[in-house]
Amino acid sequence: MALIVQKYGGSSVADADSIKRVAKRIVDTRRAGHDVVVAVSAMGDTTDELLELAAEVAPIPAPRELDMLLSSGERISMALLAMAIHSMGFEARSFTGSQAGMITTADHGAARIVDVTPVRLREALDEGAIVIVAGFQGFNRDTRDITTLGRGGSDTTAVALAAALDADVCEIYSDVDGIFTADPRVVPNARKLDVVSAEEMLELAANGAKVLYIRAVEYARRHGVMIHARSTFSSSVGTYVLGPGMTVPDGHKDAHKGEHAHKGEHMEEPIVAGVATDLSQAKITIIGVPDVPGKAAEIFKLVARSGANVDMIVQNVSAAATGRTDISFTLPKADATAALRALAADQDEVGFESLVHDDQIGKLSVVGAGMRTHSGVSATLFEALSVAGINIEMISTSEIRISVVVRGDDLAAAARVVHTAYGLDGDTEAVVYAGTGR
Amino acid sequence: MALIVQKYGGSSVADADSIKRVAKRIVDTRRAGHDVVVAVSAMGDTTDELLELAAEVAPIPAPRELDMLLSSGERISMALLAMAIHSMGFEARSFTGSQAGMITTADHGAARIVDVTPVRLREALDEGAIVIVAGFQGFNRDTRDITTLGRGGSDTTAVALAAALDADVCEIYSDVDGIFTADPRVVPNARKLDVVSAEEMLELAANGAKVLYIRAVEYARRHGVMIHARSTFSSSVGTYVLGPGMTVPDGHKDAHKGEHAHKGEHMEEPIVAGVATDLSQAKITIIGVPDVPGKAAEIFKLVARSGANVDMIVQNVSAAATGRTDISFTLPKADATAALRALAADQDEVGFESLVHDDQIGKLSVVGAGMRTHSGVSATLFEALSVAGINIEMISTSEIRISVVVRGDDLAAAARVVHTAYGLDGDTEAVVYAGTGR
Repeated sequence: MALIVQKYGGSSVADADSIKRVAKRIVDTRRAGHDVVVAVSAMGDTTDELLELAAEVAPIPAPRELDMLLSSGERISMALLAMAIHSMGFEARSFTGSQAGMITTADHGAARIVDVTPVRLREALDEGAIVIVAGFQGFNRDTRDITTLGRGGSDTTAVALAAALDADVCEIYSDVDGIFTADPRVVPNARKLDVVSAEEMLELAANGAKVLYIRAVEYARRHGVMIHARSTFSSSVGTYVLGPGMTVPDGHKDAHKGEHAHKGEHMEEPIVAGVATDLSQAKITIIGVPDVPGKAAEIFKLVARSGANVDMIVQNVSAAATGRTDISFTLPKADATAALRALAADQDEVGFESLVHDDQIGKLSVVGAGMRTHSGVSATLFEALSVAGINIEMISTSEIRISVVVRGDDLAAAARVVHTAYGLDGDTEAVVYAGTGR
Repeated sequence: MALIVQKYGGSSVADADSIKRVAKRIVDTRRAGHDVVVAVSAMGDTTDELLELAAEVAPIPAPRELDMLLSSGERISMALLAMAIHSMGFEARSFTGSQAGMITTADHGAARIVDVTPVRLREALDEGAIVIVAGFQGFNRDTRDITTLGRGGSDTTAVALAAALDADVCEIYSDVDGIFTADPRVVPNARKLDVVSAEEMLELAANGAKVLYIRAVEYARRHGVMIHARSTFSSSVGTYVLGPGMTVPDGHKDAHKGEHAHKGEHMEEPIVAGVATDLSQAKITIIGVPDVPGKAAEIFKLVARSGANVDMIVQNVSAAATGRTDISFTLPKADATAALRALAADQDEVGFESLVHDDQIGKLSVVGAGMRTHSGVSATLFEALSVAGINIEMISTSEIRISVVVRGDDLAAAARVVHTAYGLDGDTEAVVYAGTGR
């Protein structure tokens, strides 16, 4: 008998039939003897529809009211889910973010969790009920107003509940089977990982893997929550995201041994966990920057003030003859206009010659905790790309990751050759479901 | 500078444009220097759509969860309304039933208000904000669960807020201009009443008039709240519902004098305020009931236990030869099946001969506080119907009302001749808007 937190995204509860399917899944978990707490997102496109309505009545909706509006979405899905469970003969009770004790900062639309006081959830669990909690929302103690957590909010709700209730596992359901060695839509013979370390998962999520939100993974690692990423549409074991000292639960360990033991891949820690791809970034190159101390700082202060989130930076070797150099950096495509505008406005002061904007790039990242102790990992990457004739434009590394920027058109081919080079290819094609998992 | 509570129903906030129109109306009231508190219903058909979804996931939805579900509807409309007001440059804040301090019994789906503690509303008003409150909902202090008030809930929310905040007037907006001397769809030359007494309004509402809910009128009379029933689609003065000791506000009194003074009708209290029509009732006749003491009690105990709400009762004079009598009663059509089943199940014990069910009846009621002191009021009614050749099947009276049951097909004609007989006809046809006003 364990306490299991489950999270279901909007596509898992998009209509009445989906809700009944999810209800059955929850009831099955209860029948197996476990206590169950569920965090649920708004149905399908509800949030987008509400945002559209808001845009119709007000050009810039008041943030407090926008949160009041959006928080109604989970209220609908959670009440329906509780009813569906009820009609299967099980006791279920739904709770809003504030009823669940999800206490946040007052930053409407992007509130951070500051405390979780799940008194009412504990009471309901003690009374034998299945607990359903509205994902994505909380409330602020000072203003007594309702808040929403922003992107990845429901995943974060689930992980925060798992931490506060000391749950055995936090199951994050989506429309994919778990975490793959690469995006199966890019690399068809990508394999599902049975286990990934939290730090690897953070690098994968930060570099383009979309199954889990980095914010939820961070919260889980900090609070010692074990995440199990799995599919709403199958009952097979997904991927366990393990923090320091965690091990896969007994039952599931056996299952995966039976499945994969012949490959011998779990005898020692694999060097590379996976290959992440990301087409969402743009590159800005600042040409002819005076090669004097403090120029880089000046430039990136300007960029930061424009609100842009800089990822990779490369400063070319200075050409001695001119005393000038070029600086390139990548950032989310959506941030590029603001950054370009900020730089152009101060061109004379900074003293650079021109700006080049390039939104046709792709980023490929190889992630693996094993890299730390294995030499030659980057050599494998560069050789594979070189053989395939793919040009590397930028490189950045962390202790457990190497990222390269290539042409966007080359990204899929690059991912496939690198995936093969690290011996990650599976025997069969991965199953890809329609939809987005959110 | 007054404190005005306004209530807008679902058809008044059915889409973005309607919401903006209502927002403008609220802002205009604020601009006139008044404090404004608004109770709002869910948008258009939202409640019906949510009920449909609930029926899809569970045959008999859990009442607590149904209230959680339905309460999301007002959350959407009130947040959008607050945003729309905000974008017109005025400060507005929305509050859920529980944030507004609307404390109720725990009867999900039909909760009664037990206390109103509008601390947060007072704070917001003191800070100069327009206050928007979710109609139809509250919460229970013991279970800490969200409740809904059932039919007429939003009207009742508005009146309860007006009472708790000691508002000057509670304006109930719908798609009709106010209270009419008869339903304008039945009697085309019905006149709008400038004033109606609360006790007349109660009788009118209880007997088929649909503009105000009896529950809200009751609450208003008990707590001394002045209701002003008026149209969302025009700025003209509607109908004031006055409790004991209340008078029409000065500005409005002048306006209506200018409009109607030539008719001289406000010089003394009119005898009859209006004619109400009701096609929602059915009649059950129990034939051959043994004429012994206690039989009627036995029968109506059975009917009450079936959940039916009995309205009129007529017991025929007993036929001495048989020692048996017939008893007829009316009740809402929806309650008839349960009542018939309950009676049939105990036929042998009660000892009646047979049951006749008739759902083709219509009820006409003449309401007027002046009846109390004027003789001949009922004679006018009976003569008018007799001249028109309309047969009366049942009669019931109160101090300020006479109701008769006629064939349903005769009801409209009956209403017209009676309306004329009491001198209620106006000079022009009343304007009828589409929609339902809820």
